[in-house]
Amino acid sequence: MTSTVITGIGELTTHSPLGRLSDAALVLAEGRVAWVGRSADAPDADVRVDVGGRAVLPGWVDSHTHLVFAGDRTAEFEARMAGQPYTAGGIATTVAATRAADDDALAANLRRLADEALAQGTTTFETKTGYGLTVADELRAARIAGVFTDEVTFLGAHLVPPGTDADSYVALVAGEMLDAVAPHVRWADVFCERGAFDEDQSRTVLTAAARKGLGLRVHGNQLGEGPGVRLAVELGAASVDHCTYLSAADVDALASSATVATLLPACDLSTRQSLPPGRALLDAGATVALAGNCNPGSSYTTSMAFGVTTAVLQMRLTVEEAVYAATKAGAIALRRDDVGHLDVGARADLQVLDAPSVTHLAYRPGVPLTVAVWQRGERVVRPSPL
Amino acid sequence: MTSTVITGIGELTTHSPLGRLSDAALVLAEGRVAWVGRSADAPDADVRVDVGGRAVLPGWVDSHTHLVFAGDRTAEFEARMAGQPYTAGGIATTVAATRAADDDALAANLRRLADEALAQGTTTFETKTGYGLTVADELRAARIAGVFTDEVTFLGAHLVPPGTDADSYVALVAGEMLDAVAPHVRWADVFCERGAFDEDQSRTVLTAAARKGLGLRVHGNQLGEGPGVRLAVELGAASVDHCTYLSAADVDALASSATVATLLPACDLSTRQSLPPGRALLDAGATVALAGNCNPGSSYTTSMAFGVTTAVLQMRLTVEEAVYAATKAGAIALRRDDVGHLDVGARADLQVLDAPSVTHLAYRPGVPLTVAVWQRGERVVRPSPL
Ligand SMILES: [Zn+2]
Ligand SMILES: [Zn+2]
Repeated sequence: MTSTVITGIGELTTHSPLGRLSDAALVLAEGRVAWVGRSADAPDADVRVDVGGRAVLPGWVDSHTHLVFAGDRTAEFEARMAGQPYTAGGIATTVAATRAADDDALAANLRRLADEALAQGTTTFETKTGYGLTVADELRAARIAGVFTDEVTFLGAHLVPPGTDADSYVALVAGEMLDAVAPHVRWADVFCERGAFDEDQSRTVLTAAARKGLGLRVHGNQLGEGPGVRLAVELGAASVDHCTYLSAADVDALASSATVATLLPACDLSTRQSLPPGRALLDAGATVALAGNCNPGSSYTTSMAFGVTTAVLQMRLTVEEAVYAATKAGAIALRRDDVGHLDVGARADLQVLDAPSVTHLAYRPGVPLTVAVWQRGERVVRPSPL
Repeated sequence: MTSTVITGIGELTTHSPLGRLSDAALVLAEGRVAWVGRSADAPDADVRVDVGGRAVLPGWVDSHTHLVFAGDRTAEFEARMAGQPYTAGGIATTVAATRAADDDALAANLRRLADEALAQGTTTFETKTGYGLTVADELRAARIAGVFTDEVTFLGAHLVPPGTDADSYVALVAGEMLDAVAPHVRWADVFCERGAFDEDQSRTVLTAAARKGLGLRVHGNQLGEGPGVRLAVELGAASVDHCTYLSAADVDALASSATVATLLPACDLSTRQSLPPGRALLDAGATVALAGNCNPGSSYTTSMAFGVTTAVLQMRLTVEEAVYAATKAGAIALRRDDVGHLDVGARADLQVLDAPSVTHLAYRPGVPLTVAVWQRGERVVRPSPL
């Protein structure tokens, strides 16, 4: 396996207690960070790359996506931009398209989005089932997702399929469907929201999943205040995601728990909602992650940089807080300590910005700054799509 | 000269009364659009490119930038994100760095940003002097800018240089400085704002410039309501830019004039201000353009797509309105009819999106969708910076 030394790093963000290093170098060997130090002291390696003073930071860790789907929802998006409110109902459109697609089409779509994200610096991502909603379709989604990532989440409780009784669907999800899918996933998740699953239904699914040994995640507090955050904290979920509408008690609960508050600002903007109270969560002491929530309905983006930019310009995070939230805190939300940072021993997943500092991620909004990506120590090459 | 036929266009935005065409083709010859029609009917050409169902639209027309400068202002940006308010004072930092830089450094920085913008689809841009503020330095800036664009604006009235008497500086700008710079520029502009130039001072500069045959532009109503819009309309300026804070009378004045309201949303977000009332301006009947305002202080972006995305998600423009604002209306703000559209005879400046529709510019926030650009009929190739 080829080792690589990256020299001339103008600013290196490792998330170690050292903070940002200037004039730094990294050695990547056997897929890991093997050495970190001053550029002048860098040891030799098979390949040398000088990044000319540019900034290097960990690859993004996108801890919340929905990539196993078919179809898009351009028309629904256009209608929403023309003034119609966002409801959970549109998910059923994607369920129908996903069930109708063959395995190859689903895998090709997932690969397209994963490649698009990787080119923009996303080296680790979680993704969910949830557009199948039958035992066979959820199992299929979990298997396809597992080809692309270790972080697969069972989201049978995404929506009660139209025409189905809610309580009997919950029994199916927490019973036969969970039995079938659990061996193929690491996590279980519930859309705990008015119009989706209430507190009792969510608890039924999550406790059944925990008994199967799955880690827990919750979609909560997206469309209004509700029981999602409270339930996630009570059950020790790794993360509660959205957190757009939080009571003071919700903020306190998150601050005094190990449950990460995962914010999805591209989703809030794409549905013309308020942005989540990231500043208040950090001030209270909560761990805040940023994720993309890529899905064809409410947040069809693979750009983690957009979330970082938005968090700084519009949610009053500092750039360091936002970058941490999109890397290290995303890893914490996935209970991973091998990604999201660049200390020695970490997975050699990193990105180079065409800028001297991570500050430029907010200082230069919309400019695609990620110009090179290494994943597991190998440089990523993406051919132009045209 | 090589002719090119672009076929397989899933959606073609020309801004002709035909609207968006599907299954379309374009022929580019001698730097112009020579033919527009159905893909199946496309004539032959020297080069054939099939874009596989992707969307094609005019290149962006960025009618407001400040690219003749040296230095950056990362530290000031970080301070602002930490809670310090934006004032015009930071401009003096860039003035000092610009004066100290040699011609080659200024040209290289301009080229870097123009190339970065071009790769993102910006095929026409205006740029301004305004970081020189002496006769020699303003003249130098105008000459350097003129190497890169026909749309150069004299902005001697950007800031009263620290330590200088305002009225004598206005006399210099409207006299000797204007005499020196006018032969090298098409436009004159004034920063009409509290802390910069008041109504009388702005009128003095603008009327002197008009007598020299220059077209007029105004920076107005950025930091609060004020006389900028009123003055721009009164003097028949081509555009008044920022328009963040408008009275009802300002909206009415713009709606009943030929002065374009040019909105700079990346600037408003980068200075944590409100976004401008784009919806109200359009509803009243004003012509609204979107521009980037690229400068190292208040809006350090070359991404026109970011402005389009923001206008749709946060200012309630439709995608069509926002795309028009960033192309055709930008051309109107520059009083140009050869760019910003793709009717036969237009300059062959266009971009291809890695998406089936321009809607994706808002539906997929932050994703760099522009995958190919033609300028004056030639495909733009930008080597990777690393
Ligand atoms: Zn989600
Ligand atoms: Zn400006």
